[in-house]
Amino acid sequence: MITQINHIGIAVESLEATIPFYRDQLRLPLVGIEEVTDQKVRVAIFRIGEVHIELLEPTDPESPIARFLEKKGQGIHHIALQTDDIEGEIENMRSNQIEMIDVVPRPGAHGNQIAFLHPRSTGKVLTEICQHGEEQAH
Amino acid sequence: MITQINHIGIAVESLEATIPFYRDQLRLPLVGIEEVTDQKVRVAIFRIGEVHIELLEPTDPESPIARFLEKKGQGIHHIALQTDDIEGEIENMRSNQIEMIDVVPRPGAHGNQIAFLHPRSTGKVLTEICQHGEEQAH
Repeated sequence: MITQINHIGIAVESLEATIPFYRDQLRLPLVGIEEVTDQKVRVAIFRIGEVHIELLEPTDPESPIARFLEKKGQGIHHIALQTDDIEGEIENMRSNQIEMIDVVPRPGAHGNQIAFLHPRSTGKVLTEICQHGEEQAH
Repeated sequence: MITQINHIGIAVESLEATIPFYRDQLRLPLVGIEEVTDQKVRVAIFRIGEVHIELLEPTDPESPIARFLEKKGQGIHHIALQTDDIEGEIENMRSNQIEMIDVVPRPGAHGNQIAFLHPRSTGKVLTEICQHGEEQAH
């Protein structure tokens, strides 16, 4: 079951240039800044209600976020939906002809399990489903 | 104060073609479908946790959503942030050199008051702030 939006990922050229808007103008709490080496990004995480806003800055020209910025410029990159059963969700999607980028969940940040749906199947919105890791579920 | 994300607006060519993904695959409750004549759009509203996802289909080639679709194709159009004091928020933004599209709140759906920030001031993400109308605040 999809329970809520987990986070919205926003591609930015520079965390330094973008953090002040979210922190000082919107006055959202900055939860932390971390590097996700697998995705070659630095991420600034803000909390807004039950949702996180993640600003994604590429650390390498080969990062998927660097390629997105080149093609489309800054803007919203993806929406992540939280589920309590990622494997069941993937199976359900596939049996309904929804195309998955990840047919097997892969590790995300914080021990989360994540899987991306193909934008072809979602009306062009890059959509991730994610399930909290063990340490957060208990 | 910004309290939560109110909704995410997604520009689509056709509600009919896009509703099934959100309703049947993600199994989100469809709150309703309404026409917003001011914006020349038909809107399908889904609930996901405390947030709404709004699918926006233009009803006229002069709709801002029609122009967005022409330029960028389907995708996320804007994020709306909920505040309990929209006038104070606008004043605060302006005094911090944040450029507003609406310097005075204007009526949105459901008696809400809304105002758009200029993407130049938000790292290119079209951002709306909104305050619930009287009938929902009580």
